[in-house]
Amino acid sequence: MENTLQLIQKDHFANHNQMRVIEVGEGTAKTQMTVTGNHLNGLGTVQGGALFTLADLAFAAASNSREKIAVALDASINFIKAVSSGTLTATAREIDLKRTIGIYCVEIRNEADELIATFQSTAYRKEPKL
Amino acid sequence: MENTLQLIQKDHFANHNQMRVIEVGEGTAKTQMTVTGNHLNGLGTVQGGALFTLADLAFAAASNSREKIAVALDASINFIKAVSSGTLTATAREIDLKRTIGIYCVEIRNEADELIATFQSTAYRKEPKL
Amino acid sequence: MENTLQLIQKDHFANHNQMRVIEVGEGTAKTQMTVTGNHLNGLGTVQGGALFTLADLAFAAASNSREKIAVALDASINFIKAVSSGTLTATAREIDLKRTIGIYCVEIRNEADELIATFQSTAYRKEPKL
Amino acid sequence: MENTLQLIQKDHFANHNQMRVIEVGEGTAKTQMTVTGNHLNGLGTVQGGALFTLADLAFAAASNSREKIAVALDASINFIKAVSSGTLTATAREIDLKRTIGIYCVEIRNEADELIATFQSTAYRKEPKL
Repeated sequence: MENTLQLIQKDHFANHNQMRVIEVGEGTAKTQMTVTGNHLNGLGTVQGGALFTLADLAFAAASNSREKIAVALDASINFIKAVSSGTLTATAREIDLKRTIGIYCVEIRNEADELIATFQSTAYRKEPKL
Repeated sequence: MENTLQLIQKDHFANHNQMRVIEVGEGTAKTQMTVTGNHLNGLGTVQGGALFTLADLAFAAASNSREKIAVALDASINFIKAVSSGTLTATAREIDLKRTIGIYCVEIRNEADELIATFQSTAYRKEPKL
Repeated sequence: MENTLQLIQKDHFANHNQMRVIEVGEGTAKTQMTVTGNHLNGLGTVQGGALFTLADLAFAAASNSREKIAVALDASINFIKAVSSGTLTATAREIDLKRTIGIYCVEIRNEADELIATFQSTAYRKEPKL
Repeated sequence: MENTLQLIQKDHFANHNQMRVIEVGEGTAKTQMTVTGNHLNGLGTVQGGALFTLADLAFAAASNSREKIAVALDASINFIKAVSSGTLTATAREIDLKRTIGIYCVEIRNEADELIATFQSTAYRKEPKL
């Protein structure tokens, strides 16, 4: 799992947008961001792509916590509540794990534990190259 | 449509990640980004969240080209081809437009016109506040 | 809620395919089917459309348990485990409820409580016509 | 392709619901149904599961038109227009084809060529067992 964390910590897009992995377990992960002006859209709320990226980072950490390299085939997101400030936490859990396919659900919540968005993604799992 | 462009051009998250709207029509839009190191994940390819954001920006421009304010209810993305460099263009088109709901498809292609990702999103349309 | 059950019990497609609502609460519902030859695809496993319909029926019952008429805007399903026999139960729960939009998750499980499929759908809620 | 058609024509759930494959090409397929009372929900319109099944059958025919056995990993559907009668045609096309993964889009239209639903599904492709 150290390798995964190293991989995920090299995620330049997440770093550039001040998102961080705060926890990785077997098939689980948590990521976090504190909302700044850079995360907002033209309406003054956190941009959908910022929420997606925070969830995707949790998915990437959780799905790469196993022995294989996992990449997303597809993902979907539901936007539940618009937010403009505060700290958001994305929590990923594994719904299914097969030889080459894994399915992960992610919830994003704010500090009041309100549900901000739900995310689901299917991972394709490859043997790591040496 | 000027208002939409103004709204979209104030998208701080898109600006912070060097994505730009290059075209807006009635229910259509194009966005573009030139891949830099800041867009990459730990595997050295463009992060899924960066692709999502580029598509989402095209969706936002297209869905806000109408007389109402449109926000995304949900969105899904399929990742077709990993890319590491070059200029990516997202093209949004309107599949359906009802009084309060609109559906939009976005394709992301590279300079060789290869399909990189497909995106679909459902917009909720609100009366603008004066 | 009596009205909802009446509405759902008139679902001819569900009836024709021997699916039944076994429970409806506020924002929740359970549906059930016992697999017969009519539910199978050419590979001998339960057809994706049959699983979708069972989940959709649970969604319809749950989303119509409120005071408004709810129709699906979109839905997605993940197929986790192929099954060929036994009784399948779909359980729907409400993730979010706004004035005109509701979000519901459904899980389908077999008698061994194994996860067969997950389903998510967004409802559009209309005032009932008198 | 004869094998595919044979496989798809043995789809008991589709047969039970009077849906038929009318065309199969390389990565493409068309399916059709004429709406009867058995396809309706409690509101008197074609049930979402019936539309899903018609689209899924087109997806199954298109994705199994290749040399491998294809099964759906996930699928999503957008419900555009409610219908109560007439003949519906689902047309599937291949968006992407990799060694183990294929992506397919399906459109359902009525006789007036109006868009009724859009469907997208990701196939997992397995070597056929001899």
